[in-house]
Amino acid sequence: MVVFEQFLVILWRKLTIFRMIQQVEITLQPKSRGFHLVTNEIMRQLPKLPKTGIINIFCKHTSCGLSINENADPDVRVDMETIFNRLVPENRPEYEHTLEGADDMPAHAKSSLSGVSLTIPITNGHLNMGTWQGIYFCEYRNFGGARELVVTIIGE
Amino acid sequence: MVVFEQFLVILWRKLTIFRMIQQVEITLQPKSRGFHLVTNEIMRQLPKLPKTGIINIFCKHTSCGLSINENADPDVRVDMETIFNRLVPENRPEYEHTLEGADDMPAHAKSSLSGVSLTIPITNGHLNMGTWQGIYFCEYRNFGGARELVVTIIGE
Amino acid sequence: MVVFEQFLVILWRKLTIFRMIQQVEITLQPKSRGFHLVTNEIMRQLPKLPKTGIINIFCKHTSCGLSINENADPDVRVDMETIFNRLVPENRPEYEHTLEGADDMPAHAKSSLSGVSLTIPITNGHLNMGTWQGIYFCEYRNFGGARELVVTIIGE
Repeated sequence: MVVFEQFLVILWRKLTIFRMIQQVEITLQPKSRGFHLVTNEIMRQLPKLPKTGIINIFCKHTSCGLSINENADPDVRVDMETIFNRLVPENRPEYEHTLEGADDMPAHAKSSLSGVSLTIPITNGHLNMGTWQGIYFCEYRNFGGARELVVTIIGE
Repeated sequence: MVVFEQFLVILWRKLTIFRMIQQVEITLQPKSRGFHLVTNEIMRQLPKLPKTGIINIFCKHTSCGLSINENADPDVRVDMETIFNRLVPENRPEYEHTLEGADDMPAHAKSSLSGVSLTIPITNGHLNMGTWQGIYFCEYRNFGGARELVVTIIGE
Repeated sequence: MVVFEQFLVILWRKLTIFRMIQQVEITLQPKSRGFHLVTNEIMRQLPKLPKTGIINIFCKHTSCGLSINENADPDVRVDMETIFNRLVPENRPEYEHTLEGADDMPAHAKSSLSGVSLTIPITNGHLNMGTWQGIYFCEYRNFGGARELVVTIIGE
């Protein structure tokens, strides 16, 4: 019986490890139009990460986006805004969806270009991004307001 | 022994919960060139979703794409087509890959811009997208035919 | 007691299956600027894949990217480079981030357009991509050097 008991204790510990999925909904404070480094704003709203796994960050809106890019020189974020505005200019006569403002339809298109969801590896309990990588929140509207994210953590 | 039996029953129930991954291959019916809202066409082909987790939808083709964008005004989908055509125009003299038609190479490039795969959170047994979000299938070919998706559901 | 033993053996086997997450860091050899088919270079550095699941491939850099596109005609990769250069041209007077060379800021923007991370389904122990799909590594710098990827495999 003692052997069985020990066996069951080991089993139980293994099972505890298998509680693999955590999920939280978090809010990003309102931001000006442009590209913002939000790694810290996101991370401080998350529970303790598992040792190994992935994190999925999903933005519940259609006129902003998420991306991963350089975390150092702020000029990169300025130029990103310039480049995305050049890719999808406002006030083009061919646009049909114009009722919500000149910035609205371009914001939708930019959102599909950058995407609204990131999947990042977790290693040794931390996001395993490169030295120069950070999480960008891309606000494509002039006045986007607070933005909601769903964060799903899968790991063990 | 009774205590052991109860313990094993609890263990077994926990294990049943841990059957975490489901996967299905589904088909989208042929669509005209452009952006199509396909949330319902996909969802009705899926098994019951787990309580918490993620879903990955992967498109097995190189001249179409998947995106998440506005589910309300159809004008958004019209303008998306206009904008993507402006981003990657057809019949440019510098293209080398032209044997499969004028729409083919631009379709490949658009596919890399939108991506062919989405990862969406599952919460309380449903896709946890925002109120205005829907799944877009982006058909970049003039005659793309039926398209195959692999859907992987990870949850508990 | 014999029944219990058998039961515990079954439990244990189930638990072994549940070791669901594997993760490795791999290196891609230095590549010329452009789009490269790297399915084989990645796959030969991976452990045996599980029967069913997903693989996430994450690039730890901000001036290159990953994409999925046509694995057959090399002209597609040539035209992809042409198209991405047209989308984000070099040496525009409005760029502010110019200290690291004319190819640097466009490389950051292209990285956000293609993305740096792929999630691909695993079926029957193999990547379940379409017949014509392959993994592209997109080197947006003139001299990018070796590039590091984190590969996370979730499956059972």
